[in-house]
Amino acid sequence: MGEKKTVSIVGGSGYAGGEFLRLALGHPYLEVKQVTSRRYLGDPVSLVHPNLRGRTNLKFTDPASLEPCDILVLAMPHGVAAKELEKYRGLAPIILDLSADFRLKNLDLYKKYYGEDHPRPDLLGQWVYGNPELYREALKTADRIACCGCNATAVILGLYPLVREGLLAAGPIFATVMISTSAAGAEPSLASHHPERAGSLRAYKPTGHRHTAEIREHLPGSPEVHLTAVATDRVRGILMTAQTFLRAGFTEKDVWAAYRKVYGAEPFIRIVKLKKGIHRYPDPAVVEGTNYCDVGFELEEDTGRLVVISAIDNLVKGTAGHAIQSLNVRMGWPETLGLEFPGLHP
Amino acid sequence: MGEKKTVSIVGGSGYAGGEFLRLALGHPYLEVKQVTSRRYLGDPVSLVHPNLRGRTNLKFTDPASLEPCDILVLAMPHGVAAKELEKYRGLAPIILDLSADFRLKNLDLYKKYYGEDHPRPDLLGQWVYGNPELYREALKTADRIACCGCNATAVILGLYPLVREGLLAAGPIFATVMISTSAAGAEPSLASHHPERAGSLRAYKPTGHRHTAEIREHLPGSPEVHLTAVATDRVRGILMTAQTFLRAGFTEKDVWAAYRKVYGAEPFIRIVKLKKGIHRYPDPAVVEGTNYCDVGFELEEDTGRLVVISAIDNLVKGTAGHAIQSLNVRMGWPETLGLEFPGLHP
Amino acid sequence: MGEKKTVSIVGGSGYAGGEFLRLALGHPYLEVKQVTSRRYLGDPVSLVHPNLRGRTNLKFTDPASLEPCDILVLAMPHGVAAKELEKYRGLAPIILDLSADFRLKNLDLYKKYYGEDHPRPDLLGQWVYGNPELYREALKTADRIACCGCNATAVILGLYPLVREGLLAAGPIFATVMISTSAAGAEPSLASHHPERAGSLRAYKPTGHRHTAEIREHLPGSPEVHLTAVATDRVRGILMTAQTFLRAGFTEKDVWAAYRKVYGAEPFIRIVKLKKGIHRYPDPAVVEGTNYCDVGFELEEDTGRLVVISAIDNLVKGTAGHAIQSLNVRMGWPETLGLEFPGLHP
Amino acid sequence: MGEKKTVSIVGGSGYAGGEFLRLALGHPYLEVKQVTSRRYLGDPVSLVHPNLRGRTNLKFTDPASLEPCDILVLAMPHGVAAKELEKYRGLAPIILDLSADFRLKNLDLYKKYYGEDHPRPDLLGQWVYGNPELYREALKTADRIACCGCNATAVILGLYPLVREGLLAAGPIFATVMISTSAAGAEPSLASHHPERAGSLRAYKPTGHRHTAEIREHLPGSPEVHLTAVATDRVRGILMTAQTFLRAGFTEKDVWAAYRKVYGAEPFIRIVKLKKGIHRYPDPAVVEGTNYCDVGFELEEDTGRLVVISAIDNLVKGTAGHAIQSLNVRMGWPETLGLEFPGLHP
Repeated sequence: MGEKKTVSIVGGSGYAGGEFLRLALGHPYLEVKQVTSRRYLGDPVSLVHPNLRGRTNLKFTDPASLEPCDILVLAMPHGVAAKELEKYRGLAPIILDLSADFRLKNLDLYKKYYGEDHPRPDLLGQWVYGNPELYREALKTADRIACCGCNATAVILGLYPLVREGLLAAGPIFATVMISTSAAGAEPSLASHHPERAGSLRAYKPTGHRHTAEIREHLPGSPEVHLTAVATDRVRGILMTAQTFLRAGFTEKDVWAAYRKVYGAEPFIRIVKLKKGIHRYPDPAVVEGTNYCDVGFELEEDTGRLVVISAIDNLVKGTAGHAIQSLNVRMGWPETLGLEFPGLHP
Repeated sequence: MGEKKTVSIVGGSGYAGGEFLRLALGHPYLEVKQVTSRRYLGDPVSLVHPNLRGRTNLKFTDPASLEPCDILVLAMPHGVAAKELEKYRGLAPIILDLSADFRLKNLDLYKKYYGEDHPRPDLLGQWVYGNPELYREALKTADRIACCGCNATAVILGLYPLVREGLLAAGPIFATVMISTSAAGAEPSLASHHPERAGSLRAYKPTGHRHTAEIREHLPGSPEVHLTAVATDRVRGILMTAQTFLRAGFTEKDVWAAYRKVYGAEPFIRIVKLKKGIHRYPDPAVVEGTNYCDVGFELEEDTGRLVVISAIDNLVKGTAGHAIQSLNVRMGWPETLGLEFPGLHP
Repeated sequence: MGEKKTVSIVGGSGYAGGEFLRLALGHPYLEVKQVTSRRYLGDPVSLVHPNLRGRTNLKFTDPASLEPCDILVLAMPHGVAAKELEKYRGLAPIILDLSADFRLKNLDLYKKYYGEDHPRPDLLGQWVYGNPELYREALKTADRIACCGCNATAVILGLYPLVREGLLAAGPIFATVMISTSAAGAEPSLASHHPERAGSLRAYKPTGHRHTAEIREHLPGSPEVHLTAVATDRVRGILMTAQTFLRAGFTEKDVWAAYRKVYGAEPFIRIVKLKKGIHRYPDPAVVEGTNYCDVGFELEEDTGRLVVISAIDNLVKGTAGHAIQSLNVRMGWPETLGLEFPGLHP
Repeated sequence: MGEKKTVSIVGGSGYAGGEFLRLALGHPYLEVKQVTSRRYLGDPVSLVHPNLRGRTNLKFTDPASLEPCDILVLAMPHGVAAKELEKYRGLAPIILDLSADFRLKNLDLYKKYYGEDHPRPDLLGQWVYGNPELYREALKTADRIACCGCNATAVILGLYPLVREGLLAAGPIFATVMISTSAAGAEPSLASHHPERAGSLRAYKPTGHRHTAEIREHLPGSPEVHLTAVATDRVRGILMTAQTFLRAGFTEKDVWAAYRKVYGAEPFIRIVKLKKGIHRYPDPAVVEGTNYCDVGFELEEDTGRLVVISAIDNLVKGTAGHAIQSLNVRMGWPETLGLEFPGLHP
């Protein structure tokens, strides 16, 4: 494996960049070189990310002073990476973007869900969607990796085997994602003010959620998935439930078979559907801090109604962990490297 | 109005009975006479319900020593009221049952969702479903009131005007109820053990939820409602989202019109769909402790997909408050009596 | 009692003003006339306080357009009331201030804990501290009521009978207040950003807490109370523990006697010290939304160490409820009027 | 280092045993051989500990079928290890006990706080208290390691440098530990029933806490530490505040010097006392899942009052992590092995 690869993070004071930083600091083949933040310029990264006290002496640097490195990670607000990519492309041969800017190739879907034309459609062809479960082969040689959206990951990984194997009836699939407060980022607002937010359950995006675009682009055949997002007051985690019908003639056995066939060798997907105990279905509390996506389901025999359930940590499997996994694939490293934390109980 | 009416509660150490007790103690026309509990016999009711310290000197009595009263409230586990009704019927001219025993007239639905034949089908005809929004007229003379299930209430009140006015397209309606831990009752178990339960989001009943029966029986035309229940770690409250399609030709205006027509005079239903502020849709945190059912919706113009959202406190509008409201209707009292608490912010 | 008294609230978009508004709307002898907010000018008060939807049509008005009323409530940030009192004094014969501006008469304590000279020492003599348990007689004729600080209330009410009756040994009393996030007000900040705040336990003010001044001024003999404030992630509520030693010769019986003597007739103080059940000591969860202060204690027989415990809702007994109670005393109304909510269980 | 050492865990279905299991599975030099549980005999360990799904195929075995191993870990309820040690002593040359049975040598303290004579005083001499910060040298050759109590660890590590260096004034030290629900173990009860427990703040052990004995035995000179325990509704974590006075003549500089002198080389202690940012003092949320003990303080200059603050994860640094650290010391392995997780933000 030789020496470590250097990685720098643009926008390291946010939650996505901070989580990538945490994982990169614990990765045996990565050496974090620079982390940028204009707001916290010169401050130790541990001022913002107190979990990193005593783990690194890195300080935030100016994005203008970025030096060449092996891998560059862009963790900037939506729309910035596409506009500023020219600034960064010469700095590193491999670039990962954690934003939504390069996840779609379908320009119509982009315009519909983001409300404007894509600023750099010419660049889109170079990017591979950072989802090893769907694009492992392409990732092996990808120098541009567009990391997945958190809600999209929960929906796509829950449904992919069923869609690919043709098990679902035609017609709409109603997906509900119950998300957490870290998904809205590190910027305070009245909506995220603790007394207003704690204990609340809000249907914050009943229709028109942008991740719908990713889901429709990346699921084979672009099924009619409808997405409703409900905000819980968990800090991390997504619970996804998708409701639809099984195609006539298929049974629970076929559902099991599809999941096993497609996910049997996946290191970070666990099928969770138990007959005893209190943890019978996926639960975001169980995967907190981990790169797992737990997937389960229940079939109503007499109607064929199928409920698919998945759970992830939005900042790990939904963002930075999925990015590290994609990078491991790209570099030819063991895919679980740096992603070993199993989560806590209780 | 004359003198107060006496009310006794059978099974007052549980959460439903305790909540009825709290509301009855604050009701100007009710006087609580007896509260039974075998387990806590002789203990002050405030030992179990610490909010009632200093509010009453009542002690738990033996159900065997119940005396005649004006109104008897049964708050026993499922299945007990139907079997033991003979014991109680002579004690009071008016009986309210908080359990599921008398909510259905359709014996097939009962058998399908409760897994056995109803023990006393002969009694069912006497009972009126304790939902003033649907059955106000019938409740005015009802001497047997079968109080509604909490999840059923959230679903029924969210959908009723749309179903009644014929606004929904044919086809399935997928309802998701995000419920809270008090819904499982006062009996400790591993599943309710705090370290296991706190922070968890569990799809605890993806299919086959018993309240589906009530929903199908009481919504006009018995629409195809599918119910998925997810357990959050709130102590109280339900957030319901229902996803379906509007019938072709109808618009957002029609949805507004239906809600206003049907609910315009309802004292406990608020249509919540704001264009500004951070509380734009129903949220169980806002209605905690109150008898409100907040209802909102969002329509996806291009597809006709409709998301209906409702929020209640499962122990108030979902149980004891709805029961008090039904009782107010029955007695000819102002319908909001004893139910004035507006909830807290924050 | 005659007709209702009109009350207006200056600064009604914050949590203290909003809570006073909620209580005033439910008070049988009060009519809310105006509620001011510069930021939300013209918006319905229910936009900010969603619990008040359907309960009032009031809109926020400009403080400059305040009209005369019977009672004026000032709910402004610290320091504003003292500076702007001239503006408001002609508007109403009775003024309540919810801020810290008029709570102290000792100018040295003010300077020590607030870091500057009091801007209007000439006014201080007119104000009575809004604590009926200590100053009921003086409040009966007070036209200026300085409402108490929330932490100060928890400490003072916990210790008052013991201090007054001379039961405590000389020497320091170490009080710890575990507070909640609403105490910091309605203004968002990084410290109150939900992902940062949820789950955290922060010693945010280990020394130098300003409420120490109130405690020392209003407890008889100005005992040496040291205050440490820890921020929990509850939205409402304070749990106070105070540790000190009983004076030699006194026993648990004497402690009981002191509490009974001083608090025996208090409508909002409950002595909570049970030998069975799970709610044996004061707990802010039990008093949420109520005007109760629950007080308990435990004595270590062999050392004489005494732990005093109290619990309040910081926005009710700690702010707006205590203010309403003081106002009830001033107006000669029943002291519990408008403060009847018993709290919820669970 | 050669081959891995085998470790077996007696009582692996509880939280302490489960946490040791999690850490041991991730430890490069440990191989978990057997995990016992009578209740879950034959079930996969991941049925109880869902975080371990896909990480191990171990099943719970009968304690009667334990085989010889290199290291045996006893994770049984209080009192069992002392009584049954004969059964286990032949199975492994090195034994760690996670209970309180062997933590004290002072038989009077044991009797006072545990209410009975120690059942096996003859064994106590062999055991070393599993606190590397105090007993690193002794642990290097210890074959019997008595792991520390969680609350005792928070108090001892907060105060040790100050006590050892003689910085504290004579007189009482009032320590308050704010603990979490996992501390009460995996057995459901009404007190741990989620609806009763969520949101509550309970002074559950104002006096007489058993860990006082450990604190007094292991802090040099047995200072007069008084312990009050308050239960929060966090699942994991302890925040400790201790209030006392600095000895006359000492200043903040001396406090810093003492901490730096004693803890300068400690791998798991961080001094947290910042002048900017929102994470200025120790917070259990920051150390969740980690083996860190964060320690901070604040000095009130004019009175000499000192508030010491510490934060740990009760199941890691307070139990299983401290045990692994002690074992690393005993085996001559790098002390941080298997304890690398830095915690999450947010």
